Amino acid sequence: MRGGLCESAHRGAVAVCDADGALVLALGDVERPIFPRSAVKVLQALPLVESGAADQLGLGDEEIAIACASHNGEPRHTAVVERMLARAGLDLGALECGTQWPTREAVQRQMAAAGIQPDALNNNCSGKHAGFLCVACRMSGGVDLRRYAKGYVGAEHPVMRAVAAALQAATGFDLSRASRGTDGCSIPTYAIPLRHLALAFARVGTGVGLSAGHAAAAKRLRSAVARHPFMVGGTDRFDTRVMETVGERVFCKVGAEAVFCAALPERGLGVAIKIDDGNNARAAEVAMAATIEALLDLDDADATFMRGLSDLTLRNWNGIEVGALRATDALRDPLRGAR
Amino acid sequence: MRGGLCESAHRGAVAVCDADGALVLALGDVERPIFPRSAVKVLQALPLVESGAADQLGLGDEEIAIACASHNGEPRHTAVVERMLARAGLDLGALECGTQWPTREAVQRQMAAAGIQPDALNNNCSGKHAGFLCVACRMSGGVDLRRYAKGYVGAEHPVMRAVAAALQAATGFDLSRASRGTDGCSIPTYAIPLRHLALAFARVGTGVGLSAGHAAAAKRLRSAVARHPFMVGGTDRFDTRVMETVGERVFCKVGAEAVFCAALPERGLGVAIKIDDGNNARAAEVAMAATIEALLDLDDADATFMRGLSDLTLRNWNGIEVGALRATDALRDPLRGAR
Repeated sequence: MRGGLCESAHRGAVAVCDADGALVLALGDVERPIFPRSAVKVLQALPLVESGAADQLGLGDEEIAIACASHNGEPRHTAVVERMLARAGLDLGALECGTQWPTREAVQRQMAAAGIQPDALNNNCSGKHAGFLCVACRMSGGVDLRRYAKGYVGAEHPVMRAVAAALQAATGFDLSRASRGTDGCSIPTYAIPLRHLALAFARVGTGVGLSAGHAAAAKRLRSAVARHPFMVGGTDRFDTRVMETVGERVFCKVGAEAVFCAALPERGLGVAIKIDDGNNARAAEVAMAATIEALLDLDDADATFMRGLSDLTLRNWNGIEVGALRATDALRDPLRGAR
Repeated sequence: MRGGLCESAHRGAVAVCDADGALVLALGDVERPIFPRSAVKVLQALPLVESGAADQLGLGDEEIAIACASHNGEPRHTAVVERMLARAGLDLGALECGTQWPTREAVQRQMAAAGIQPDALNNNCSGKHAGFLCVACRMSGGVDLRRYAKGYVGAEHPVMRAVAAALQAATGFDLSRASRGTDGCSIPTYAIPLRHLALAFARVGTGVGLSAGHAAAAKRLRSAVARHPFMVGGTDRFDTRVMETVGERVFCKVGAEAVFCAALPERGLGVAIKIDDGNNARAAEVAMAATIEALLDLDDADATFMRGLSDLTLRNWNGIEVGALRATDALRDPLRGAR
């Protein structure tokens, strides 16, 4: 909103599902397969715990949390990823996610001011990839780990097969008939309907419909993230701020191109959102904030916090109020109905 | 596009007009008033030349070009703005646009590495504001310039009245009945239908329908920008690249929230585009590139260059091809018809 007009607008779809697959709410097309990108990192991290890799390597909560992360590449993040790799006897040379300047401009400037160039540790997916390498370590048996792990991002590598199997089991969607794309960090991404993504997150939040191993893994992953929400995002990030405030009542995870998934364990619900135009910061996040606010019974402080993420005042370079960013009634009204 | 699917999509509207106001092409709603933001800086710069301020202060082509700019705040830009202010006997303390880190991350990192903090000169609008201050200098008569110029961003200040009058004259749209918002740099922005914006740019390209003073000013502004396209954008910027390549055959200017205007003088046409969701980099620019490519008779090299801006391969952090960004047939087909 600016000057009393709607200046720009975002459209999308929202699915809210219970763990039995019943759709509690469907706005827009929830059957069209979409690439979930990083929104499903918690599902991709299930093998890390379920395989026994995390226990074998003695990973702590920070390492387990960062395996689910799209982090800012801040020093606290890169240190944990480096430590995780060291536990598997590896270093950043084993990462196949590519080098990336951290997305947050302030982090880039801090690095530039310190004369630091980015490496694969700064890639927002480096924690997930370190997790994959820990799985490779577990699977490799007596074979040389570096040789075994090489090409782990490929769809046919045993690590990526285990990741795809976990994704298929949680979503209940047959990936053999799914369109496959390549993600920003080079691993496969499979097109899955929002309805199935919401189902997977209802399962992650409740354990219902998962194998005993995956259910225990999901619980441990959620618990680790709840203890270290900074690890999954970082300074000023939506996921981090929400989980720091609301705690274990929400597990939420953003993905590229405005895919956003969440588990609301106390409601037994999973949420999956896709904004058509791919805008995360001012569309997927706003929609997710409105959804959490509507579906959870929050106290006043938490409700005010969430409302601050779905109904924002916009200020210009001089700090003058120039407009607003808000979830529309087209989203809020049906959410109230799903409450 | 990713993995054979359309991953994200952008919608919008396009108006193409001749200088008599005839609509050559209308896609989407071209009558809905939208805030043109920085896309109309060339219209806002008409008083700088028409008032005699540019001549009085001996402004050269670089200064005149940067008055139409949303620049990157690179050293070449800030030096020209500083010089322009000095010609009016002012310095950056007179700028009321606010302080902004340059939008381009690489420029931010260069500044951070050199230990430089941003100031108002780095604001992408600083050239436009320096132009306003030059107009204030011309208008101020014997009055102390700093006192006269103070509050020049206000809608009722004589400078901003002259700017609004030029905008109204060029667009033929009655601003007294327009919604008014505040722009990022604190000046008023008036909601104007795309059809009127396209008309204004047809007039800027031809002089038809403008006063003799505005027509001469428009010609000088276009010519200055054609000689110094770096000044209106900078390194790796769409406007700069297009005008460096195609020269005076196109005058194009992007604005915040995915508004994009262009004059195509040899066709006597003006173009105005608004993408609903406000995405510039991968929607407004792609649509403008497809429009220029369709409406101008380009040689093979220029056509290939323009096609490279409307049909792009996307690569990930490892340089692997992961998808494509392209203008759809829903845009290209009607443009072919308008040729």
